[in-house]
Amino acid sequence: MSKTFKLLIISVSLTFAISSFSIMQTKKKVLFFGDSITQAGVKPGGYVDLMNAMFLSNGLDKSYELIGAGIGGNKVYDLYLRMEEDVLTKHPDIVVIYVGVNDVWHKQSSGTGTDADKFEKFYLAIIKKLKQANIKVAICTPAVIGEKTDFANQLDGDLNKYSNVIRSIAKAENLPLIDLRKAFLQHNFSKNPDNKESGILTTDRVHLSDAGNKLVADEMWKTIKEIK
Amino acid sequence: MSKTFKLLIISVSLTFAISSFSIMQTKKKVLFFGDSITQAGVKPGGYVDLMNAMFLSNGLDKSYELIGAGIGGNKVYDLYLRMEEDVLTKHPDIVVIYVGVNDVWHKQSSGTGTDADKFEKFYLAIIKKLKQANIKVAICTPAVIGEKTDFANQLDGDLNKYSNVIRSIAKAENLPLIDLRKAFLQHNFSKNPDNKESGILTTDRVHLSDAGNKLVADEMWKTIKEIK
Amino acid sequence: MSKTFKLLIISVSLTFAISSFSIMQTKKKVLFFGDSITQAGVKPGGYVDLMNAMFLSNGLDKSYELIGAGIGGNKVYDLYLRMEEDVLTKHPDIVVIYVGVNDVWHKQSSGTGTDADKFEKFYLAIIKKLKQANIKVAICTPAVIGEKTDFANQLDGDLNKYSNVIRSIAKAENLPLIDLRKAFLQHNFSKNPDNKESGILTTDRVHLSDAGNKLVADEMWKTIKEIK
Amino acid sequence: MSKTFKLLIISVSLTFAISSFSIMQTKKKVLFFGDSITQAGVKPGGYVDLMNAMFLSNGLDKSYELIGAGIGGNKVYDLYLRMEEDVLTKHPDIVVIYVGVNDVWHKQSSGTGTDADKFEKFYLAIIKKLKQANIKVAICTPAVIGEKTDFANQLDGDLNKYSNVIRSIAKAENLPLIDLRKAFLQHNFSKNPDNKESGILTTDRVHLSDAGNKLVADEMWKTIKEIK
Repeated sequence: MSKTFKLLIISVSLTFAISSFSIMQTKKKVLFFGDSITQAGVKPGGYVDLMNAMFLSNGLDKSYELIGAGIGGNKVYDLYLRMEEDVLTKHPDIVVIYVGVNDVWHKQSSGTGTDADKFEKFYLAIIKKLKQANIKVAICTPAVIGEKTDFANQLDGDLNKYSNVIRSIAKAENLPLIDLRKAFLQHNFSKNPDNKESGILTTDRVHLSDAGNKLVADEMWKTIKEIK
Repeated sequence: MSKTFKLLIISVSLTFAISSFSIMQTKKKVLFFGDSITQAGVKPGGYVDLMNAMFLSNGLDKSYELIGAGIGGNKVYDLYLRMEEDVLTKHPDIVVIYVGVNDVWHKQSSGTGTDADKFEKFYLAIIKKLKQANIKVAICTPAVIGEKTDFANQLDGDLNKYSNVIRSIAKAENLPLIDLRKAFLQHNFSKNPDNKESGILTTDRVHLSDAGNKLVADEMWKTIKEIK
Repeated sequence: MSKTFKLLIISVSLTFAISSFSIMQTKKKVLFFGDSITQAGVKPGGYVDLMNAMFLSNGLDKSYELIGAGIGGNKVYDLYLRMEEDVLTKHPDIVVIYVGVNDVWHKQSSGTGTDADKFEKFYLAIIKKLKQANIKVAICTPAVIGEKTDFANQLDGDLNKYSNVIRSIAKAENLPLIDLRKAFLQHNFSKNPDNKESGILTTDRVHLSDAGNKLVADEMWKTIKEIK
Repeated sequence: MSKTFKLLIISVSLTFAISSFSIMQTKKKVLFFGDSITQAGVKPGGYVDLMNAMFLSNGLDKSYELIGAGIGGNKVYDLYLRMEEDVLTKHPDIVVIYVGVNDVWHKQSSGTGTDADKFEKFYLAIIKKLKQANIKVAICTPAVIGEKTDFANQLDGDLNKYSNVIRSIAKAENLPLIDLRKAFLQHNFSKNPDNKESGILTTDRVHLSDAGNKLVADEMWKTIKEIK
């Protein structure tokens, strides 16, 4: 092999190495940190899956990598407990926190929900650790437990309260807010004229239907693509 | 004493006796059937006490007699249990049922609230017995558990649900509805700009302040004076 | 037809009439008043069905008629609400009250259990009405919610408390007590060495297995046959 | 100053320095990590205060330093959240974990207790972090919520269940167990013949009376002094 050829090979290899390195460098890892809604979100048709398609169709699939980190039944303190293992070791650039439904719901279903003050405390502790690791954070309000539009879902009061806690955190911590609760209520005011309990954006009052996954993906997309 | 004078006295006495008898006959007994809110309502400044003054200032005190029958902690089935003793034996002309706060509240405070379907069942059973005794019935929605106006009182959802049950009963049973919940919400939207939890119409999120007693008395007055 | 023959016929007819009348007279109606456990009790293999067989094999089937009056989800106040229609109109001689599981269980499962003091109040109100109708009453303690024998079933404390309420009522009202809770605990101490949650006397922690139905039938039989 | 005297001073100083250093070295820091019971435990007459006196009267006050780290309302996950700040930064030699009452109690009082599986998960996570920091650990069962001895305290079942979780952890993790629940039950079986709800070892069903603080101190002393 001639010296020139060797040099060519080395040069080409280096170019590839550098370019692939630079691709790796710029590909942003977005991790979705949540409960069963997020656990289902990575399945075909789930909101994370839909966002993958959106990044692709916008020519951004080389720039973003989406990772699901949802576990059924998780409350805010469960996220805190597993953040080292399930988040920090994965070195994401952006973490989207989507939690709160179980913190409210389990109060009523099993007596094991989360007090609002402790919900805030653990939420802030998670954010603090993510910020310390130089990870960008976006936070979501919990969407719905029941889709009735006459304000008569049993847990509406608390869902609004915990959503307000999250909205306040977004302001205080200067974080982008993905206000799913607001988006879901607005959607249902026009699309649920029969005051149904489920079947519009959810299949069972809580977990997302196709339309629900679409709405979450749309709302998240708007926010995530703007995070620098 | 002359015979004529004696006759006069007898005649006058008889006239008085008859007229007072006829007054007694036409004096409508209105019984307020409820929980601790009604129990406090008969105290000075309470809503029943205020209504007494309203009937008086409208020259109707000779036509109405107001009776309190409220017991703290009562739920709809407690009313049913004691209706023979505390209502039917008093032969009221009108009964105002004001119940529901504890049916919702005790779900969360002690695990002993009332399921919505049973709430309706007992409510209808009370109405049936009252109607059978030829008693007119007016029914009230439960006002508030917490006065926040951002829809974030924990039990707002259920209060709206149980209020809807009562509104449906009013329609189905063709009964006058005193929609306290609606009146309280409207009042607070304009009078509670700071989104306080209590202190406007309640002293403690549930029990009535002076303004609360006034609002209840006003709402009830409008309805009761129209019941023939 | 001869006069003698006519007399014979009349005499025989009368004898039949009287005897069948006396059979009707002496056939005691026993009504089982309760929840889903009693609702299932009338099915083949259920505890009421088993007792029918026991009365038969003891030659007492002509003397007793057993009637089920159980409705799923019933608590003590539900029994009170439907006692006119489901009990008094059936003119039973004996009523066996078997209630309490839902009063305790629903506290934890749906926030709609029954406070102990109101449990007692409604229980006494039922007994009073039955006694007024000259009906004999026997009362049962609620058996189990969970069969673990290490005292670690979540609701053991309350089941014991409400059973104590019933035991006190039996004493105060001088009523035969069928202490199912005691019988179930004793059975399981010897027959559930592996501390299983269900599968011994229940199929699902609450509803009766074949062995459970057998034990209930045995305990009730001992008491009911002694009621004069 | 003569050279000899200088040497003497240096020598004496060194001796003092070394001896005080060695005292500091051997003084074992014992940290009590818990809820309001432990928060009250450091007050005069509290169980930590009593143990200080016990170490003193046994001539061990130079060998042990007792530190309270109890915060009212804490559940197992609250301990986990604050263990860096409140435990690890204090470099204790021994940590006594005394938690569980609120995890059970808040299920019933506010719907915000802790599921048994998560209770275990967080408990193990705390132990793991302490062991990693070379800290010895002793663990306690939660004593009582209600002192009735007829097994009819509402939360007895769950307290037994969560105590069993802790007993299993002690075995699996090879940790000394301070079985307060067992000690309290045994005490009350002999000292609470009237089946009182409180007033023997507690003032209010949960928080310790003088006798309760004494019993906890005695039980802990037996275990802690044996930890090498």
